[in-house]
Amino acid sequence: MEKLVVVKIGGNVIDDEAKLSSFLDDFACIKEKKILVHGGGKMATRIAEQTGIPQQLIGGRRITDAETLKIIVMVYAGYINKNIVAQLQARNCNAFGLSGADGNSIEAHKRTGSDIDYGFAGDIDRVNATLLKNLFEQNIVPVFSPVTHDQKGVLLNTNADTLAQEIAAALSADLETTLIYCFEKSGVLMNADDDTSVISKINTEAYIDLKDKNIIAAGMIPKLDNAFTALNKGVKNIMIGKAGELPKLLSGNAGTAII
Amino acid sequence: MEKLVVVKIGGNVIDDEAKLSSFLDDFACIKEKKILVHGGGKMATRIAEQTGIPQQLIGGRRITDAETLKIIVMVYAGYINKNIVAQLQARNCNAFGLSGADGNSIEAHKRTGSDIDYGFAGDIDRVNATLLKNLFEQNIVPVFSPVTHDQKGVLLNTNADTLAQEIAAALSADLETTLIYCFEKSGVLMNADDDTSVISKINTEAYIDLKDKNIIAAGMIPKLDNAFTALNKGVKNIMIGKAGELPKLLSGNAGTAII
Repeated sequence: MEKLVVVKIGGNVIDDEAKLSSFLDDFACIKEKKILVHGGGKMATRIAEQTGIPQQLIGGRRITDAETLKIIVMVYAGYINKNIVAQLQARNCNAFGLSGADGNSIEAHKRTGSDIDYGFAGDIDRVNATLLKNLFEQNIVPVFSPVTHDQKGVLLNTNADTLAQEIAAALSADLETTLIYCFEKSGVLMNADDDTSVISKINTEAYIDLKDKNIIAAGMIPKLDNAFTALNKGVKNIMIGKAGELPKLLSGNAGTAII
Repeated sequence: MEKLVVVKIGGNVIDDEAKLSSFLDDFACIKEKKILVHGGGKMATRIAEQTGIPQQLIGGRRITDAETLKIIVMVYAGYINKNIVAQLQARNCNAFGLSGADGNSIEAHKRTGSDIDYGFAGDIDRVNATLLKNLFEQNIVPVFSPVTHDQKGVLLNTNADTLAQEIAAALSADLETTLIYCFEKSGVLMNADDDTSVISKINTEAYIDLKDKNIIAAGMIPKLDNAFTALNKGVKNIMIGKAGELPKLLSGNAGTAII
């Protein structure tokens, strides 16, 4: 089976020009088929402030009202996506930026059934694996922004960790897939304040135990839930770790392995 | 030879939700291979105002400084492009949005050699016709925003009329290509204030004559220059006319034909 690497890069790294550049150097060097999924960063919040759009957060989650959606599409699918694509092209990596609307690559629906109205938040229904495989045949490296659509003309703000998980899972039937979550920390930590306290391997049992003991930082739980979901859907290797250590994460010599 | 239709839609139509929707209905119905190239519109100027970025115009042309470029990329390659793509997808048209950086589809360079520094304005060097033909094979309809790149990581603001002309010209060796410039007027007018004074056909000789007599509105000259350039590069049919009359423009029953 041919290999595929799906890398998710978070907002904190995107906001740091030097770290992003160094990360893209490493990403461009990956020899296998590959996909990059990027998050947001602070630019959307800054533009919302500058244009006078109040930002609502409920339980740490942004409520995507219509005006906020506009900014998210502009910043995530526009500014961030195209700058990453141009920078990868400059590194001889044939990047091609997508939102879920492009080529109907990611079908989603507006989140329902919750007590909270998250607004234009999208939950993913289907990844268009055929399209992605056709792009690979043209040596294209897909670069996904966390924006999807509902096939009825509505764009939706979508969690980038979940997007990466769904893409990796959808392709794992045909490709031996590695999913790497890159962020600012060295991995899943025993002590959130100590970046050397990396848990090198974690399985479902240990995860439940560490959650019960409140050792896992709250912010890590959605990422870990996505990681275990990917594992259960057939993604072969899953790593969580520092964006600056991408080559080591790829070889399993840094970060946290989900097993 | 198979047929291709390249349609350019201008900013005034993009700013009008109802007109844009009706135009997209018509575009989605085109049965031939097709490409949409869209312009900007007023949203970029509005966001520049809201975020306090002064806009410089020299001779009616926007000077694209670094801060303006950010907004152009956000609005053109992000908001406008993804909304058009999502709306076409809702019409069962398999649209796929691109900037020139995506898949290295349009190589350009920063404009030089002028007395005026236009900033991050891109002049096109090459259209990646192979990529576009591969996308056609997957029944994809490319939707271009007027943003290109220099292959060194820099995005560039590029004239959408010129972009449409270069794309049509590059594909006309392999496809019988029609280029349609859609805007708010009914065609090239004898009298700019009378929308019924459409010149139905215009050749190079007549164009020079009408220019000499100052009959052609100044704003039309770059569009007509692009139209005649396309003709000279082998584009088979070129029409200029109203966005609301796309089907008639396609059948040659409205607008101005460039012959």
